[in-house]
Amino acid sequence: MSDTKNRIRLGMVGGGMEAFIGAVHRTASRIDDKYELVAGALSSTPERAKQSGQQLGLPMDRTYDSYAKMAKAEAARPDGIEVVAIVTPNHLHFAVAKAFLEQGIHVICDKPVTSNLDDALALKSLIRETGCHFLLTHNYTGYPMAREARRMVLSGAIGPIRLVNMEYIQDWLSGDETGKQAEWRLDPERSGAGGCIGDIGTHACNLAQFISGLAVRELSADLHRFGAGRRLDDNAHILFRFEKGAKGLLWASQVAIGNENGLRIRIFGETGSLEFAQEEPNKLWFAQIGKPKQLLSRGGAGFQGQARLPAGHPEGFLEAFATLYSEFADVIRKGETGPVPLPGIEAGIDGLRFITAAVQSAQDGGRWVAV
Amino acid sequence: MSDTKNRIRLGMVGGGMEAFIGAVHRTASRIDDKYELVAGALSSTPERAKQSGQQLGLPMDRTYDSYAKMAKAEAARPDGIEVVAIVTPNHLHFAVAKAFLEQGIHVICDKPVTSNLDDALALKSLIRETGCHFLLTHNYTGYPMAREARRMVLSGAIGPIRLVNMEYIQDWLSGDETGKQAEWRLDPERSGAGGCIGDIGTHACNLAQFISGLAVRELSADLHRFGAGRRLDDNAHILFRFEKGAKGLLWASQVAIGNENGLRIRIFGETGSLEFAQEEPNKLWFAQIGKPKQLLSRGGAGFQGQARLPAGHPEGFLEAFATLYSEFADVIRKGETGPVPLPGIEAGIDGLRFITAAVQSAQDGGRWVAV
Amino acid sequence: MSDTKNRIRLGMVGGGMEAFIGAVHRTASRIDDKYELVAGALSSTPERAKQSGQQLGLPMDRTYDSYAKMAKAEAARPDGIEVVAIVTPNHLHFAVAKAFLEQGIHVICDKPVTSNLDDALALKSLIRETGCHFLLTHNYTGYPMAREARRMVLSGAIGPIRLVNMEYIQDWLSGDETGKQAEWRLDPERSGAGGCIGDIGTHACNLAQFISGLAVRELSADLHRFGAGRRLDDNAHILFRFEKGAKGLLWASQVAIGNENGLRIRIFGETGSLEFAQEEPNKLWFAQIGKPKQLLSRGGAGFQGQARLPAGHPEGFLEAFATLYSEFADVIRKGETGPVPLPGIEAGIDGLRFITAAVQSAQDGGRWVAV
Amino acid sequence: MSDTKNRIRLGMVGGGMEAFIGAVHRTASRIDDKYELVAGALSSTPERAKQSGQQLGLPMDRTYDSYAKMAKAEAARPDGIEVVAIVTPNHLHFAVAKAFLEQGIHVICDKPVTSNLDDALALKSLIRETGCHFLLTHNYTGYPMAREARRMVLSGAIGPIRLVNMEYIQDWLSGDETGKQAEWRLDPERSGAGGCIGDIGTHACNLAQFISGLAVRELSADLHRFGAGRRLDDNAHILFRFEKGAKGLLWASQVAIGNENGLRIRIFGETGSLEFAQEEPNKLWFAQIGKPKQLLSRGGAGFQGQARLPAGHPEGFLEAFATLYSEFADVIRKGETGPVPLPGIEAGIDGLRFITAAVQSAQDGGRWVAV
Repeated sequence: MSDTKNRIRLGMVGGGMEAFIGAVHRTASRIDDKYELVAGALSSTPERAKQSGQQLGLPMDRTYDSYAKMAKAEAARPDGIEVVAIVTPNHLHFAVAKAFLEQGIHVICDKPVTSNLDDALALKSLIRETGCHFLLTHNYTGYPMAREARRMVLSGAIGPIRLVNMEYIQDWLSGDETGKQAEWRLDPERSGAGGCIGDIGTHACNLAQFISGLAVRELSADLHRFGAGRRLDDNAHILFRFEKGAKGLLWASQVAIGNENGLRIRIFGETGSLEFAQEEPNKLWFAQIGKPKQLLSRGGAGFQGQARLPAGHPEGFLEAFATLYSEFADVIRKGETGPVPLPGIEAGIDGLRFITAAVQSAQDGGRWVAV
Repeated sequence: MSDTKNRIRLGMVGGGMEAFIGAVHRTASRIDDKYELVAGALSSTPERAKQSGQQLGLPMDRTYDSYAKMAKAEAARPDGIEVVAIVTPNHLHFAVAKAFLEQGIHVICDKPVTSNLDDALALKSLIRETGCHFLLTHNYTGYPMAREARRMVLSGAIGPIRLVNMEYIQDWLSGDETGKQAEWRLDPERSGAGGCIGDIGTHACNLAQFISGLAVRELSADLHRFGAGRRLDDNAHILFRFEKGAKGLLWASQVAIGNENGLRIRIFGETGSLEFAQEEPNKLWFAQIGKPKQLLSRGGAGFQGQARLPAGHPEGFLEAFATLYSEFADVIRKGETGPVPLPGIEAGIDGLRFITAAVQSAQDGGRWVAV
Repeated sequence: MSDTKNRIRLGMVGGGMEAFIGAVHRTASRIDDKYELVAGALSSTPERAKQSGQQLGLPMDRTYDSYAKMAKAEAARPDGIEVVAIVTPNHLHFAVAKAFLEQGIHVICDKPVTSNLDDALALKSLIRETGCHFLLTHNYTGYPMAREARRMVLSGAIGPIRLVNMEYIQDWLSGDETGKQAEWRLDPERSGAGGCIGDIGTHACNLAQFISGLAVRELSADLHRFGAGRRLDDNAHILFRFEKGAKGLLWASQVAIGNENGLRIRIFGETGSLEFAQEEPNKLWFAQIGKPKQLLSRGGAGFQGQARLPAGHPEGFLEAFATLYSEFADVIRKGETGPVPLPGIEAGIDGLRFITAAVQSAQDGGRWVAV
Repeated sequence: MSDTKNRIRLGMVGGGMEAFIGAVHRTASRIDDKYELVAGALSSTPERAKQSGQQLGLPMDRTYDSYAKMAKAEAARPDGIEVVAIVTPNHLHFAVAKAFLEQGIHVICDKPVTSNLDDALALKSLIRETGCHFLLTHNYTGYPMAREARRMVLSGAIGPIRLVNMEYIQDWLSGDETGKQAEWRLDPERSGAGGCIGDIGTHACNLAQFISGLAVRELSADLHRFGAGRRLDDNAHILFRFEKGAKGLLWASQVAIGNENGLRIRIFGETGSLEFAQEEPNKLWFAQIGKPKQLLSRGGAGFQGQARLPAGHPEGFLEAFATLYSEFADVIRKGETGPVPLPGIEAGIDGLRFITAAVQSAQDGGRWVAV
């Protein structure tokens, strides 16, 4: 049905049954009707891959049990996939991305982009060579009010930036977690050198840079492991020095009981400040020196961004995610750049540099390390 | 592509370019991948209907400029639509629904179901006769925490109900509005006898009944028109008497400056209370006599409902809307009833009875009128 | 010590040990150092009166067991009290006030001023005749941000008023209360004809009129008794018509589980709105049509009122109460009128008229009754 | 009048007209009626001292223009002051305290206790030698909900502590301030080595230790000066290591536009967490692993502390301050220890150690320094 809709043919690696992030990507791909999932290597277990494919209504012959086979087979079909979404654990991102890029297939990849900096740099070369497009799903940059904050900062609404305060606090690793989500995130072989700094710290860092427009220069990190027997950090306190003299602070935690997904960015300039909290994404606090505080809302007075719904009709996590998919589709189909730069391989490299520097600083007793 | 996905073939009447609610329905239909929009009479203006169809990627031959033609043509095709979504102004709902039901096509209809009670009752008969399924999109019942509130009330968490406080306050008609959205809503010929009581009061009423499980017995209404030259109410204060001795209060307004989409239901029983606000739909306040207040969250501790995302990852308006579409698909395809009763023709009739009684009471100086 | 301080000599009737409101008045009288408590008839039980006096450091000879004796004895002393604070249950207010006024002693009286309208009117005459000053402690009008709201309304910040929404909800009578505080409030002989409408409804009404500057013209009331065996209302839903075409709604409740002292006034004009909530008294929401909402703060940008402390240093209930005492002292000592009219006998009469009309309307099935 | 009241005779040094903190101390001393201000050296300018004394109703002969004279003269009177409140700029605290302690007069002193650690240690010896009592007004420890948090932590409600997050952010030095309040706080000669870390960082630190019961072991500090030409820090990011393995983070700022007096302590244990914010001092968030979050309130369900007012009647800054005065009066008059340890010279020494360590660490590039 509906070839007229001209949807982008999408494949997926990872994201089989019960995987949280795979379902998020699939829903995000559908929201603006620009993609159709047509193939997948949804699990490395053949039986599971098959069942997952059936459940999603994929044709049998495009339900693969190996991403390598999939990359080749799809590249060979006239109706083969144009883009692949990679939603595996971190340590597989690089190899999977490589396999598809080498076949000229665009890539959408979950973050962190790879499990180490060398791979990320190699990936960058590969992307350049193949001419493919690459999207890293730093999804929080898709929130309309995060973008509004960025627009306001860039327009000078708060003056030159002095302080960037980042908080990303969760509590799901407060006890002795053993579930599937926890397992690979706590395993250095699959997650890389960062625990909560990789899983969520990179998101906070990325969003702060997105909003502030500032690059990180140096950091001093204190990483902690509170959970019994953990090999990776589950809490981090990190001091930042940004370019242009701005200072910063990041608190990332997965043991902060009472916090679900507490990503919050507060940015202070010489004449004003902005505060964005992911759990209330339709709002944005704006303060100006000598004036009453304002609570801005998505779609409300003064809002200059793009919204799917009128003010007061909450947009959420999936819509922000979908916005990245949607704008990436326009890059692919129309060569159009959207209203903000989409997160790509550079954001991925920044993330790896951040993780690397943080681990090194923490090992050296909090020494200031260049990022 | 993808017949294997077995999506329900969906048509739409109304919802052409720039129409807000049409886009909401379409997105909602895609989120859980159970529908494919394949035909439409998107506008009563032929040129506009055609353009809208093209924009949505509909085949030319299934882009109609009349719902009547569409109903017949689709019924005649082997691959004709199975369900139609009606997103026209209120006064057309009845005729359109009738046309499709008579062809044995299921109906999804925006609220209020018709512009008067007689039509709603006629529709009920028609639905019974044709054996078709009918969904009225009282979308706020799709929010996980509204459903959690309902579950808790029914399980006795707050004891026998004493009070139901309903508030639905907006501000978009505070000035002298002349836009497309305002135009038909303020016109009795197209909206019916209720202004803001029909547009939003019915939502509040429906949600309160959904959560409380209580039917309205009587009401006493005070309706107001603040906007210059308005022929329908833009503010309402209504006293309620529910069954089982519960009392209630509804404040609906479209001139409450500073409020975007302020739908809030507070329910008080003999031993506890619950408070749900649409603008923060992932939360629910729960108080028990003699205990500290609890802030429940979707996906958080104690949550027994269904959620798309983990706690702290905001779900919004579109997801709640999508849940109705999704569960209605299961009714159609599998005959499955979901976790809560879906709003149908009875809810529509309740809404009309409420509007009728409120208008009558207000005309009689606030006399208590049976609903 | 410290005659130089020239404090006003204060007496108190009622407010013995364990009485909540007596302690509030005494603390309020001290905060700005303009009063000294020097005499009291703190209880009608002689032993208790004596003990209470000792506890407060009153001289034995000025610790009375009868307000009548006290009025005479104090009037006869050269250093007798100049003002008396009446903090007895409602039904005694009139007789006590009368006794002191007749001796030329100024009166500070808790609300409601008397237990019926006739007494209130009689009191008014008496005040006029004696030339004494009279303060009714509608203490919520002492909050700086309630006053700021009033100032803004009067200055036209929200335009002509359309709606006044009043909410005063508590939960302390949700169960079957038998404590001292509950006992007299639930007894018509001691409380008067109003239960929660008298105890707290009058406060809401008074504060709404204070802020809006509007008089009530008519009301339609629905009063309820949820607690077993209650003889007075513990919940009220009341529709209002104010002068100048403004409409209003009051919800007063003492069975709203989860609410402690939820007095909230929301006022909507043609161009803006204001929202004040007693439990967060240092804040005030201000919305203007077509502009982002502002959260004003006591002492913050734009604040034009008087504050004891800088912004961000919370002032509370006692300070607001003290402000009434303080300004009343300036009336007495200096004949100075403060920044706002202090609540006096007129406010008391308004309160009684409101109670009377509400009870009558409720008895007549919600008939609109002039106030 | 009223010798029977047996108030403690209080003197004051500093706190003349327009001084904010002097008025706070005086009001705090009156709230519970345990003190009477009878003497003062309110300003070092004789004329100003005299006027200030007159304004407060002090006898002419007890209005001094020198604290040294005052200490001697009052010690010589049979009705001389028993306690002196010191509310001068920091650099004078030591000399004034010394003068009164040497006369056997108890001392109430604003924080930080002295401008350097040596003086603080000397003061400690002097207090021990003279046997006088000493109160350091770390007033935030007087808030009922801060005390409730402490009680809960000590009772094990959140398990062994992992993290202590301290935030004290203000914005009053965001611009180029030149007022009286700013002047001495930004002058190292009068403030000591710490700018915002001394003025507010010490408060945050003290409150965190009060609630957590944990001593600081080491810190790593990053201090900043954003205001043009400032000689002291106006922003600080400090990492902490507490005893028993707990980690901490402090952000203190006086350039955080949009924040008035944002002192907030969040404490996370192995099984729960608590969050207290000074600007909403009647509330306390309590989370337990695997349970819904609770919003505790002063006077509400489960509250075990002492409160002046029922739940929902806001207590504020002055009441918390008054509680320290009140309990100190009981120490003096009755030798009674209150429900929590009052802040004294040890708290002052802790504060100076903290400032000293922070300045040293910052100068050494963030080296971890023992406290």
